[in-house]
Amino acid sequence: MKRRTFVKAAAAGVASAAAASSFPAPALSQGKQRWKMALAWPANTPGLGLSAQRVAKRIEMFTEGRIKIKVYGAGELVPAFESFNACSAGDVEMYQAAEYYWQGHHKAFNFFTTVPFGLTGSEHYAWINFGGGQELWDELSAGFNLKGFANSWTGVQMGGWYRKEINTLDDLKGLKFRMPGIGGEVLRRMGVAVVNLPGAEVFPALQAGTIDGTEWVGPWLDLNFGFYKVAKYFYTAGFHEPGTVGSFGINKKVWDGLTDTDRELITAVIQAEGQYQTSEFRGRDLAALEKLVSEHGVQVRSFSNEMYREFGRLSGEVVREMAAENPMTTRVYESYAGFRKGAIALSKIQEGKYLRARELPFKWS
Amino acid sequence: MKRRTFVKAAAAGVASAAAASSFPAPALSQGKQRWKMALAWPANTPGLGLSAQRVAKRIEMFTEGRIKIKVYGAGELVPAFESFNACSAGDVEMYQAAEYYWQGHHKAFNFFTTVPFGLTGSEHYAWINFGGGQELWDELSAGFNLKGFANSWTGVQMGGWYRKEINTLDDLKGLKFRMPGIGGEVLRRMGVAVVNLPGAEVFPALQAGTIDGTEWVGPWLDLNFGFYKVAKYFYTAGFHEPGTVGSFGINKKVWDGLTDTDRELITAVIQAEGQYQTSEFRGRDLAALEKLVSEHGVQVRSFSNEMYREFGRLSGEVVREMAAENPMTTRVYESYAGFRKGAIALSKIQEGKYLRARELPFKWS
Repeated sequence: MKRRTFVKAAAAGVASAAAASSFPAPALSQGKQRWKMALAWPANTPGLGLSAQRVAKRIEMFTEGRIKIKVYGAGELVPAFESFNACSAGDVEMYQAAEYYWQGHHKAFNFFTTVPFGLTGSEHYAWINFGGGQELWDELSAGFNLKGFANSWTGVQMGGWYRKEINTLDDLKGLKFRMPGIGGEVLRRMGVAVVNLPGAEVFPALQAGTIDGTEWVGPWLDLNFGFYKVAKYFYTAGFHEPGTVGSFGINKKVWDGLTDTDRELITAVIQAEGQYQTSEFRGRDLAALEKLVSEHGVQVRSFSNEMYREFGRLSGEVVREMAAENPMTTRVYESYAGFRKGAIALSKIQEGKYLRARELPFKWS
Repeated sequence: MKRRTFVKAAAAGVASAAAASSFPAPALSQGKQRWKMALAWPANTPGLGLSAQRVAKRIEMFTEGRIKIKVYGAGELVPAFESFNACSAGDVEMYQAAEYYWQGHHKAFNFFTTVPFGLTGSEHYAWINFGGGQELWDELSAGFNLKGFANSWTGVQMGGWYRKEINTLDDLKGLKFRMPGIGGEVLRRMGVAVVNLPGAEVFPALQAGTIDGTEWVGPWLDLNFGFYKVAKYFYTAGFHEPGTVGSFGINKKVWDGLTDTDRELITAVIQAEGQYQTSEFRGRDLAALEKLVSEHGVQVRSFSNEMYREFGRLSGEVVREMAAENPMTTRVYESYAGFRKGAIALSKIQEGKYLRARELPFKWS
């Protein structure tokens, strides 16, 4: 669901960050800290907005009010993707977003959310915690006076909504399809007329026929958007965002100024939210998928292996080109790609093999 | 890695629980609480023991020492599986275990760890948090004066170590194989001479030829046990424990006596540990698998679909029999089985489909 338009706005925001320093500094009387958290989406966004509010509430509760965080939806304090600059400059202490929104600042940020045909969410966490990912992220973010944290993940994203069946590579050619970011670049190379639209404009465009299809996230959030009313074919699995991991960011100077206990506490609260909200996506996706199929007559379709091979080949091409842009991006890519190789071997014989075996026809319940 | 011998010991422990109440009560001077946490394994067990210690340390840190928890490995305070009774009686405030160890107390506990051909770990979390699982668990545990929490999960467990290849159902017949619990019952119905042994006895038995094979957990923990030295075929995926989720338990009277803030704090610390340690299993399994294959010449093998169908059919049979034992177990089973149906549909089109597509031959890195 990444939107390049917002990334551009964020990049433009570098200049405005200095001007924005007229925001009041955090209150520090009696050791109390008053933080502002800026979201990259509206504060009432299903799941994501509530997630930010839970984190803020828990931090306040556990510090007995020493650290109180006020949550602002996109546009309430700064525009959606200005939170990077605002947090970097210290005008807000914290943001909730997804790191690939910051690719206008540095391409390497993509790897801390997801890249086409990359790690699944659970593999991503393992890379962050036990594969050297967090260390590279810290190094990258420190250059922007930020400290980043992995939050929940949305599940493997779906391949999107189409009005007609897509059976061959030719069926994609000339199609007007909404997919932002590097996944969109892959589709463009396959002859798709890739369109980028902010969330609110997607449904009207699909209804008006301005676009032939769109991807968004997964059953839960897509059901809310009502795409099934216009397009009946729901494709899976998406190649473009296999493990979209959300993030929180904290101004590094604020972070470094905390006590060890407060740093550990904030880390724990964010880890806890990651566990809880990831299960929310799965639990609600499951219920939404049943509803889409049984109540709304949605047809779930899979791309062919021929198409996945081409998605895969071009994803590699685009990711490698991106990785070559500068030495830091190359280092992050190499760490990620190395971990991915081992993750493929492991996931193939664990989840992959098990999920396949569980689909075999036998009576269980 | 469940051990029926211990479960029997735990069941026998009901009688001894009353006698055990000579343990000192938690210190409550100046609002300070001093808790004891009893583990179902040694305190130095890779991953699991450290996990308990991290949870204790964080709770002490975040409450500024108001709640201080001393961690005891199995046998240090009570035998491995006596912690259920000790915690129920209030002789220890907390345990770290896996709920299926308590099946001697109530069969329904199995569903809060894992059952053969059941939910994966991430599906399990979703059931606990968004499918009604926690409410049923709370109801079940309250009858034993306990409150249970899901902790980390170990990944889909492996199918175990064999000295020879297992290509047909006939190859299993007469084999002496270590697998405890309800998975072991499935193998028994397939003609396997199922053996149950405590962890420390497994490797010597395998080396001496007393058993022909064993399952344990996954690459990381299995590498530590050195099974590869005796058996070279590592089978996958295991059908018997697809989502082994660890647990913490707290004496319910102690839990109910806490402030809202402390209850929320402990919940958050355990959720955080779940996120972190689950990623540890994946990260270390990945490195261990590489080592097993490249350094130790281990052959990774998959059971045939014919075998999985029979594993599946008999798993269903055993689980349904167990579910019918009493009304509470039936209710838990029905909730779990209903959620499983939706989870299969979702996981098939998300992770399942994606992992398959990612294995296709295309150049990515």
